[in-house]
Amino acid sequence: MEPLTLADATVAANAAAVREQGPFVYGLTNFVAAPLSANALLAIGAGPAFGAAPGWPSAFAAGASAMVINGAALTSAATPDDLTTAAAAATAAGTPWVLDPVAVGAGAPAYDEVMAAVLAAGPSIVRGNASEVVALAGGDGGGSGVDSTMDSSDVVDLVADLARRLGTVVAVSGATDYISDGTRTVAVPGGSAYMPQVTGTGCSLGAVCAAFAAVTNPFDAAVAAHAVYAEAGARAEKVASGSGSFAVAFVDALNNL
Amino acid sequence: MEPLTLADATVAANAAAVREQGPFVYGLTNFVAAPLSANALLAIGAGPAFGAAPGWPSAFAAGASAMVINGAALTSAATPDDLTTAAAAATAAGTPWVLDPVAVGAGAPAYDEVMAAVLAAGPSIVRGNASEVVALAGGDGGGSGVDSTMDSSDVVDLVADLARRLGTVVAVSGATDYISDGTRTVAVPGGSAYMPQVTGTGCSLGAVCAAFAAVTNPFDAAVAAHAVYAEAGARAEKVASGSGSFAVAFVDALNNL
Amino acid sequence: MEPLTLADATVAANAAAVREQGPFVYGLTNFVAAPLSANALLAIGAGPAFGAAPGWPSAFAAGASAMVINGAALTSAATPDDLTTAAAAATAAGTPWVLDPVAVGAGAPAYDEVMAAVLAAGPSIVRGNASEVVALAGGDGGGSGVDSTMDSSDVVDLVADLARRLGTVVAVSGATDYISDGTRTVAVPGGSAYMPQVTGTGCSLGAVCAAFAAVTNPFDAAVAAHAVYAEAGARAEKVASGSGSFAVAFVDALNNL
Repeated sequence: MEPLTLADATVAANAAAVREQGPFVYGLTNFVAAPLSANALLAIGAGPAFGAAPGWPSAFAAGASAMVINGAALTSAATPDDLTTAAAAATAAGTPWVLDPVAVGAGAPAYDEVMAAVLAAGPSIVRGNASEVVALAGGDGGGSGVDSTMDSSDVVDLVADLARRLGTVVAVSGATDYISDGTRTVAVPGGSAYMPQVTGTGCSLGAVCAAFAAVTNPFDAAVAAHAVYAEAGARAEKVASGSGSFAVAFVDALNNL
Repeated sequence: MEPLTLADATVAANAAAVREQGPFVYGLTNFVAAPLSANALLAIGAGPAFGAAPGWPSAFAAGASAMVINGAALTSAATPDDLTTAAAAATAAGTPWVLDPVAVGAGAPAYDEVMAAVLAAGPSIVRGNASEVVALAGGDGGGSGVDSTMDSSDVVDLVADLARRLGTVVAVSGATDYISDGTRTVAVPGGSAYMPQVTGTGCSLGAVCAAFAAVTNPFDAAVAAHAVYAEAGARAEKVASGSGSFAVAFVDALNNL
Repeated sequence: MEPLTLADATVAANAAAVREQGPFVYGLTNFVAAPLSANALLAIGAGPAFGAAPGWPSAFAAGASAMVINGAALTSAATPDDLTTAAAAATAAGTPWVLDPVAVGAGAPAYDEVMAAVLAAGPSIVRGNASEVVALAGGDGGGSGVDSTMDSSDVVDLVADLARRLGTVVAVSGATDYISDGTRTVAVPGGSAYMPQVTGTGCSLGAVCAAFAAVTNPFDAAVAAHAVYAEAGARAEKVASGSGSFAVAFVDALNNL
């Protein structure tokens, strides 16, 4: 398994394609992560619209260049029906889409059932932390709220298994990120210890995966998104004085890559 | 059409009046733009309260110094009934209010119907981007999600027409902003290319229009809000290293004007 | 009444305990304050999860290390039933929890009734501004939206009275903060004039009180949270150029204390 960074030519080409094409990314996400997610998308050249206003889930899921469904959208006025409607509309229209099953398996079965229904609609990419990946694979991930209690390196094999079983790309983030389509698995090192100290860095990574999925295949999209994130995190850490200034520098770095 | 800036004496006097009177601005807005919108209002000396808790739309619309309704509040737990209730209560109480019809005409008829119902309640100011203004005027604005696909300069004549037809002040933002009451049309140049790269700059401009409408007539209010925004954007760009630090510097600039 | 600061040994020990234990803080809060609240919790070492997804209010209130209910969660897709369910589940499970009755008494009786029902479930700490404390005590606090029209020093005696009557800890924030358990009352000076110019500083203080309540008794928790906040505010003011950069520096200061 070769480590992969922003220096990779395919990653750089895809980042340039996002900036050139300015894909419209529709998202159902949560109010905690929404501002950072929108700003991360704008920083790389994409155009976000978030939320389930009347008619948006079906119309925007079909019309967008790509879509992200963050499970915690259920905390933020999106109904289970909005999520499954958007998922079905995206799949039907051929809109590539990302599922980020925030906090799945963390102790709320009613929530987990909605995640299972959305997953069944066939996302192009599933992205989560280690506890969430374990929970999706049917195990006990030991998640605490929205945070993982496991490291990404604990679940590398599971990521590939799950990708094969679901027939989708699966990405897990942690100190090193792993992305697999079931056949190939890539490791993306880097990032910053500040990233888990800033709310929404994981959720916004799902949105950035969607932006890349608008310009290339799901595997290369997920790899490029994680590589861009890792590089922006490493650059931001060099100028940060704490988690607050890190968040600002991180968006600057995404904007300047 | 004379370009107008912060150097204008009326604009400066109205900015001082907002800081002195500290108007209470009630808002129904969306969760993506809400933090920046609240911080922009606080930065210029106004006091915001956002959202549709039980009883708030009628009580706060009537009791506030001014109000803003951002259509994408429909993504954020405000119902169509909350929007029309607040709009009617504000009009009945004589509270000046701003409508920002985010993404109207972008492909979701159910959403567009709610915007039409709110518009019918008689806002003091309608503020949007070029695609939204075209859609409100009955044309095809070609909007993509919440972003415009047209430039403000394409719709100058339409802004004045729409203001006359609606009997309200209409403002369109872009590289140059245009504000019209149907008789007079003012151009506000300036701002920064970073502004469309920061989520909520347009939505928060609607909130700032409302703050000014609490201290002067709707036309001078919209002009002052746009002039203050353009100047703050130009100042922030000088110290920004990217879209992240621009957003921070922009709030600082609003705070220090 | 002795003024109390971060130099106090108990405060420092409790701040270290939060960083060491990393408590999971579940919160029902509003979309305006949520990003800052989550970032403040992460900055001091706690792990937040916010919002009322299906099953979360009962499961997470029972399972979390501590909880915060911010009344304006009612603007943000949490229903009155979500709030009372979470409150009852936390009390039943022995999860310490904080109530922040945002804008209670500001003119919306339907909203005030929900606050009364949540209060009846027995929070460990009630935190608000002066107008809200007066309203909870049955008086007319004259609140304007979410902002206070009174100073904290006007209500010192009321804070102790209310704490005795409710059998809980009551904290009021202002130029000087006061915290009482009905027997002892502590004054926490410091902070910054920028704090009321940044949205969500009060709401996030409620969340930080909850994080401390996970590691010590409610009185010491509220005192420590206010002392940490005051010190971070004072430090941030020294490097801020306006309310925008203050907000960033404030999170940095919380992160570096």
